[in-house]
Amino acid sequence: MAVTGIQRDLVQLYADMRAGALLPLWTARDDLMPMQPRPRTLPHLWRWADVYAVAQRAGDLIPVGRGGERRAIALANPGLGGEPFATPTLWAALQYLGPHEVAPEHRHSQNAFRFVLEGEGVWTVVDGDPVAMRRGDLLLTGGGRFHGHHNATDQPMAWLDGLDIPLQATLDSTFFQFGDEEVTDRGTPERSRSEQLWGHPGLLPVGAFSDGTSSPLAAYRWSATEAALVDQLEVAASGQVPGLTDGHAVVRYVNPETGGDVLNTMRLAMHRIVAGALCEVVQEVGSSVWQVFEGTGSVTVGAGSTAVRHEVERGDVFVVPSWSPVRIVAASTLDLFMFSDAPVIEKLGLHRPSFGSAT
Amino acid sequence: MAVTGIQRDLVQLYADMRAGALLPLWTARDDLMPMQPRPRTLPHLWRWADVYAVAQRAGDLIPVGRGGERRAIALANPGLGGEPFATPTLWAALQYLGPHEVAPEHRHSQNAFRFVLEGEGVWTVVDGDPVAMRRGDLLLTGGGRFHGHHNATDQPMAWLDGLDIPLQATLDSTFFQFGDEEVTDRGTPERSRSEQLWGHPGLLPVGAFSDGTSSPLAAYRWSATEAALVDQLEVAASGQVPGLTDGHAVVRYVNPETGGDVLNTMRLAMHRIVAGALCEVVQEVGSSVWQVFEGTGSVTVGAGSTAVRHEVERGDVFVVPSWSPVRIVAASTLDLFMFSDAPVIEKLGLHRPSFGSAT
Amino acid sequence: MAVTGIQRDLVQLYADMRAGALLPLWTARDDLMPMQPRPRTLPHLWRWADVYAVAQRAGDLIPVGRGGERRAIALANPGLGGEPFATPTLWAALQYLGPHEVAPEHRHSQNAFRFVLEGEGVWTVVDGDPVAMRRGDLLLTGGGRFHGHHNATDQPMAWLDGLDIPLQATLDSTFFQFGDEEVTDRGTPERSRSEQLWGHPGLLPVGAFSDGTSSPLAAYRWSATEAALVDQLEVAASGQVPGLTDGHAVVRYVNPETGGDVLNTMRLAMHRIVAGALCEVVQEVGSSVWQVFEGTGSVTVGAGSTAVRHEVERGDVFVVPSWSPVRIVAASTLDLFMFSDAPVIEKLGLHRPSFGSAT
Amino acid sequence: MAVTGIQRDLVQLYADMRAGALLPLWTARDDLMPMQPRPRTLPHLWRWADVYAVAQRAGDLIPVGRGGERRAIALANPGLGGEPFATPTLWAALQYLGPHEVAPEHRHSQNAFRFVLEGEGVWTVVDGDPVAMRRGDLLLTGGGRFHGHHNATDQPMAWLDGLDIPLQATLDSTFFQFGDEEVTDRGTPERSRSEQLWGHPGLLPVGAFSDGTSSPLAAYRWSATEAALVDQLEVAASGQVPGLTDGHAVVRYVNPETGGDVLNTMRLAMHRIVAGALCEVVQEVGSSVWQVFEGTGSVTVGAGSTAVRHEVERGDVFVVPSWSPVRIVAASTLDLFMFSDAPVIEKLGLHRPSFGSAT
Repeated sequence: MAVTGIQRDLVQLYADMRAGALLPLWTARDDLMPMQPRPRTLPHLWRWADVYAVAQRAGDLIPVGRGGERRAIALANPGLGGEPFATPTLWAALQYLGPHEVAPEHRHSQNAFRFVLEGEGVWTVVDGDPVAMRRGDLLLTGGGRFHGHHNATDQPMAWLDGLDIPLQATLDSTFFQFGDEEVTDRGTPERSRSEQLWGHPGLLPVGAFSDGTSSPLAAYRWSATEAALVDQLEVAASGQVPGLTDGHAVVRYVNPETGGDVLNTMRLAMHRIVAGALCEVVQEVGSSVWQVFEGTGSVTVGAGSTAVRHEVERGDVFVVPSWSPVRIVAASTLDLFMFSDAPVIEKLGLHRPSFGSAT
Repeated sequence: MAVTGIQRDLVQLYADMRAGALLPLWTARDDLMPMQPRPRTLPHLWRWADVYAVAQRAGDLIPVGRGGERRAIALANPGLGGEPFATPTLWAALQYLGPHEVAPEHRHSQNAFRFVLEGEGVWTVVDGDPVAMRRGDLLLTGGGRFHGHHNATDQPMAWLDGLDIPLQATLDSTFFQFGDEEVTDRGTPERSRSEQLWGHPGLLPVGAFSDGTSSPLAAYRWSATEAALVDQLEVAASGQVPGLTDGHAVVRYVNPETGGDVLNTMRLAMHRIVAGALCEVVQEVGSSVWQVFEGTGSVTVGAGSTAVRHEVERGDVFVVPSWSPVRIVAASTLDLFMFSDAPVIEKLGLHRPSFGSAT
Repeated sequence: MAVTGIQRDLVQLYADMRAGALLPLWTARDDLMPMQPRPRTLPHLWRWADVYAVAQRAGDLIPVGRGGERRAIALANPGLGGEPFATPTLWAALQYLGPHEVAPEHRHSQNAFRFVLEGEGVWTVVDGDPVAMRRGDLLLTGGGRFHGHHNATDQPMAWLDGLDIPLQATLDSTFFQFGDEEVTDRGTPERSRSEQLWGHPGLLPVGAFSDGTSSPLAAYRWSATEAALVDQLEVAASGQVPGLTDGHAVVRYVNPETGGDVLNTMRLAMHRIVAGALCEVVQEVGSSVWQVFEGTGSVTVGAGSTAVRHEVERGDVFVVPSWSPVRIVAASTLDLFMFSDAPVIEKLGLHRPSFGSAT
Repeated sequence: MAVTGIQRDLVQLYADMRAGALLPLWTARDDLMPMQPRPRTLPHLWRWADVYAVAQRAGDLIPVGRGGERRAIALANPGLGGEPFATPTLWAALQYLGPHEVAPEHRHSQNAFRFVLEGEGVWTVVDGDPVAMRRGDLLLTGGGRFHGHHNATDQPMAWLDGLDIPLQATLDSTFFQFGDEEVTDRGTPERSRSEQLWGHPGLLPVGAFSDGTSSPLAAYRWSATEAALVDQLEVAASGQVPGLTDGHAVVRYVNPETGGDVLNTMRLAMHRIVAGALCEVVQEVGSSVWQVFEGTGSVTVGAGSTAVRHEVERGDVFVVPSWSPVRIVAASTLDLFMFSDAPVIEKLGLHRPSFGSAT
């Protein structure tokens, strides 16, 4: 067959394939099966002040209520084609609640948490248990738990929301249900019942109900997190325990019932890097979102010609795409909150490629 | 503020948000967090004869070799925007290998299997172990295993390939590596070493190496599958064992080392429905692809006004989107091969929504 | 055959069996396979003051040192034929260390803990990490960890030792190794490195070495245990959480890495029963040892004609044999420390007899 | 104090301790906590012919029936003080059933299996499912399952019974219940329903009830076991799979639902050693019982001056105490059935002493 004949036949073949809902692998193999991850996700950075300013304007214009449900402003990764997703699996948003506002109760299959950069005065009511929110606290709302928020003060409050919306959108596993228009308990206790039962180190309450779907501990308080960081740095400095790094401490938030991740689909951790010290994360499968809780430093995501460098300060949020190395140098003591899809990657056995760097 | 002022401010707000890589939740909540799964995936059906005819034409025009790697024709779900994906997590393709052709060795992080509708004479060589492929056989190539294929006959052969390409594309977990241009062993043994070691019921070889990433058993032969179906129907008919259904048998392919799914990300099973009997699958989270191995019947996917009905026969492939009920009525004894993303859904705790039907 | 002939033949048969190292089942079936557990273990009670008085005399007469290793006085259940075992699986002893004495370092496959009824001033040094011992504290020495003790004060100190010596004697799984004649670190820190790393609620130190054989947290402080009991009673009184009992709180000591038991073979817990309230334990497979930490009350072990009742006070130690019900009524607020072989029973699948009460 | 005074005081102390149900550790430490396991269990050997001869005599003298339940003759290890125990955890017995006799149904918490050296014609009825017994077959009766046996022939039949009676006696976890005086189904099918459902390699029946307490597969047929041994030897000879030993194959009987041991407390395996080849088992924690299924060879248990050597032939049963090395040399092809308490040791974390050889 003459070349032109072949060309013509190929054109016809591909046309017929498209018409038949068929596509060839051989022309797309390198895109579908690259030598290593080639994420569209960009290592974007958002300044908290910028996002907060927008949220304030929304606070004046958009009421919180049934239907829209939350005044949440999603960080939309510029690499992801206009979707409101920080990474292909993770949602990150600033949520803003005005003075005395109430975000109505609902529940959904998506796992969610809130991390508080600043402020206080809001209680999130999780399955009827009011949980105070204050700077540095991590609050959980595992999939399936009813939750609403109420602001008991005259000041607005904002925080970081993290969810697995993009992952569950891909998996078509999303369920949603409206609850009360109001929160079921307007109480403002210092500690939730959840903390009373599950918040004691190395101790579990025998008999207390837990549905096992996510951590039963709804609040991880900054005082405990900071104490753990201080202690770990001290032990690391002693050189007596293998595996620790002088000047860099990391604690993972865990489910006290299992020692595993607090949520089925997300890993959460807090880093502290002392001034002048370094945190290097080698390439890992899976994506993550980081927020500077306190301090300043420089962050380099990626390597070689595509590396991106951010000078970061309190409140900044940045993304680490899959298989991107990260290098963080602290100018002052730098506390970084991090969440990732590591549990997904690990449960599916995708975390340890034996041929990752080979090409 | 006048309404027009509010409107103008809102327009400006949304424009500024877009410019700042920010998007509101409140306008998109129902799309992002629907009451129940609202998949774009369609319950499409492909006729094997049609796909095979296209493959034959590709066989004449496209050589198999390094780079393109495989003459695989993907079933591209019309709901998924032109991607070569059967569902958001699953890839399904017809792979075609001409007389005496060789598909070169490679490996990738994607999990793969082959299911043989008809023909024989090809050996897939998995980590150096030649595995015969014949009608009704299921052959595994777990993520990370080198594999190539060679056709030892004068006839072409084709089969169904199933992979988790879409899932791993979303997760950015893809690694790929070329191996030998030829298969490393052109042998044509009746049974692979894998079968010799791992293919005996209720028995495991002590000491034999297994990396634990997927089933070490590379081939599940039709003779065993059919015997299991026949036996199960007989026991079901006896009424002596709870849980079985008269006229409908299902066997799951499992990893003999764990009793769990053969691959980390896909569940595989074979159904037999006797003439006149019925298989009903209630709504399940997650998507699946089905191929008629033998027999005829009618398949209804979905319910109510959106239900789609197919009259099916040998070779037909159809998709079941997430949360779609399926009802299959056998005209003659109907054998159906099925694969799904159930292990993903289950490992991530997304399979049992307690509020699935509530709206 | 005449009866006398049969009798003679039977006598000869049994004699020949014994000579051949053979024994019949049929004459022993009811002893070997009783309808329900028929333990030899008795619900014995020891008064701490009595045991302590003996320990003081031993303190004057017996030096602590290499070979004998510890001045430990075992509670020898009168039902167990003179063995120094509290139950068939559990060892309980009072250990006594004089002023400025040192118990030399060693390690063994037996799992061990210490629970402190009263006193302070001793540090147990576990794998080189000095761990303070004070009233109400639980200290762990998992199997395989080197440990010694030193008394840094002018006063003697005594505590309860719990080990799985009887179980490991039956299983012939015992290994022992001498370490330093002295403890490797005479330091007297307030907190151990172990506590600094692993003692923060819901937080784990990323990277810190842990061998996974038992809880890496060496000390469970009374302040935390008591806070958990107080909190649990408060939540129970609120009636908001299913599964809790008003007036009776129980916390289990757990491995923060797993949420499971702190030691592979023993379960440890602390009960608080408020004055007038009741703790009833239904029949459970497996045995346990209880010590009154504080308060007074009455304890009934067993039921019917074989029930034994103890009036208990601070320091008293009593045994609950397998399948014996226990009923405890608090005269004053009663804190009870308990350890059992429940992990053994559960891991071996022996905890839920479906025909337990049938005879 | 003068020496005689001290001696007198010590004598008085020890007397007072005994009177108070107290015993010292320091005088017993080396016995209670030896450097390595020091089992009382002896590496005894019983000749099957001898045991069988005794069983025949019992067959003439002792009826099988309610109460005694079974004509089982226990191999009583001479080291274990007259208890009918092969090892501290394992029971081994020859069970003998005369022509047309029936052993009535019962169930117990003890896990049990039967291994058939020779003969056929008995069906064991497990939870109503008649299971044929023939030479080389392994039959399971997990704890809690009702079972009886009936001999459908004019010949007596005998087999090896293995149970965890000694372990459960120590743990006081024994429950027993009488069932029908007769077996509930006198059928004599070739295959049990259990085999029909669970006996297909790499395939599980979806929906079939299984209580998860032990393997749902009641029979492991010799034909499959032998095929697995032949195959494994062939693969081992090829040198293509790491971990295998030329001339020595071992298959473990596993639960097809889990890939784990068939019974919670016992591991079962079959060895084949070709003539002239060698099987060496290094020291392992835990005890085992071995039966020669076919062939001849020499077995050495233990090392150094305490080693015991047996010349073995078909039917011989010998014991391997904990931590005793074993060396087996095959004179002719030697098939050895083995059962041990390895699952107990492993689940309790006692299998890998890091300081096993240190003294």
